[in-house]
Amino acid sequence: MECFKTLNKVLSKNKIKLIKSLDKKKNRLDSGFFVAEGKKLVIDLLQSDIVVYEVFCTKLISDEIIHYKPDLKIENIKKEELLRISFLKNTPEIIALCAIPKSVIDWDEIKCNLTLVLDSIQNPGNLGTIVRLADWFGIRNIVCSEECADLFNPKVVQATMGAFARVKVHYVPLSGFLKKANDLKIPIFGAFLEGENLYECELTSSGLVVMGNEGNGISWDISTYVTRRINIPAFPPDVISSESLNVAIATSIICSEFRRRIICKELK
Amino acid sequence: MECFKTLNKVLSKNKIKLIKSLDKKKNRLDSGFFVAEGKKLVIDLLQSDIVVYEVFCTKLISDEIIHYKPDLKIENIKKEELLRISFLKNTPEIIALCAIPKSVIDWDEIKCNLTLVLDSIQNPGNLGTIVRLADWFGIRNIVCSEECADLFNPKVVQATMGAFARVKVHYVPLSGFLKKANDLKIPIFGAFLEGENLYECELTSSGLVVMGNEGNGISWDISTYVTRRINIPAFPPDVISSESLNVAIATSIICSEFRRRIICKELK
Repeated sequence: MECFKTLNKVLSKNKIKLIKSLDKKKNRLDSGFFVAEGKKLVIDLLQSDIVVYEVFCTKLISDEIIHYKPDLKIENIKKEELLRISFLKNTPEIIALCAIPKSVIDWDEIKCNLTLVLDSIQNPGNLGTIVRLADWFGIRNIVCSEECADLFNPKVVQATMGAFARVKVHYVPLSGFLKKANDLKIPIFGAFLEGENLYECELTSSGLVVMGNEGNGISWDISTYVTRRINIPAFPPDVISSESLNVAIATSIICSEFRRRIICKELK
Repeated sequence: MECFKTLNKVLSKNKIKLIKSLDKKKNRLDSGFFVAEGKKLVIDLLQSDIVVYEVFCTKLISDEIIHYKPDLKIENIKKEELLRISFLKNTPEIIALCAIPKSVIDWDEIKCNLTLVLDSIQNPGNLGTIVRLADWFGIRNIVCSEECADLFNPKVVQATMGAFARVKVHYVPLSGFLKKANDLKIPIFGAFLEGENLYECELTSSGLVVMGNEGNGISWDISTYVTRRINIPAFPPDVISSESLNVAIATSIICSEFRRRIICKELK
């Protein structure tokens, strides 16, 4: 083990400063970088469209990583140095510095697929969970209002478990996006407590599904673009129960029902 | 405001010590108490079968609380003292000391209803979310293995948003419980990656649904009691996506499908 230690370089102060600064949204936007941690996640990213600018890892793991991208810039550092730059409780074997991808909305893709639209989702854990379940249900685009938690927050990156390497997340002013969707006659579903019963209402194989803020639901101005209001019925309907479901839970139930209709060939 | 301050008593050192100790499972088991915080939650508990032993709140809120239980033991304390005993980031207006209820499994109730069975769910947030969604879907019993996170952990109590006042959570050795369910011919569903497609398999209006540990799924010995293996299909089936769904998300999708079948009258 001692021989490896002598091989490991000391990370420059400037790089440490840059990486440590990336827990703040402003610094991510200014630099254009975000941080991803852990072997599985970094390998997922190396196989995706996301540009991995540089990785920091112990010598032990670098031989394996280089297979995924032979021209990858790798800096071997000591485990103690990984501890200094990591945002996780358990220090990972590898940390990657990645470029925040430019978001381009492909309207042809939106027209033919199911897309999630998030109106002011505040909790980073909820956003991470929603990206992960979108990946499971083959949803390729999530459109977020600018008030939503930031996908590139180290906690959200981690919570997506690599799913964000496959799901495109866009931050746009929602009104403009939904106005265009309306003009293109794309169905816009929205989750409301007073909506139609999800299980019995008519669904389509493509369209937008709008989910609202944890405390306040869908905001009034956004609700005006919704063409179909849907609701997950409590069971049984006449008994007092929780006032609402967590937004990630509600999103998963709605996505599941959209996909079930296709799998069970119940869509026209 | 000054007049209220003089009315407020100083909490005894012994009570502070007791309450502060209740973040540890051992201390909760030894004392038989747990802590619930915040007005909405405490009011939910006062309207449930759970015994609220004493509440600590500012004078301002006690007049409202007393309506729910006229013989309630109330101690008026200063806001600063609430801060000292609270486990939350935002100090609540009220903190209640409650008795951990004795768990008694009612087999007649289990036979006729849908029940969740949790095998080593480790994350307190997941457990809290599952109790909340169980409440939404009218599930009255959750049976946990003794390795599961503890419901009476202050974080879990808070995450359930009052749902745990309505859902009974039992901690039992799972093998014995499932053996008895098998003897009583109660259907035992279990979530497995290689199970039958949830949307197309036969479901029943009552029975047990077993959900496994976050990392390892259902343990081998518990899996031997499962009579029907079910799986939530990814979409589309041939594309690489996340390896698994979060356990609370998977539980919600399965509960939703069980309830949909009843609502849409698709069960025999």
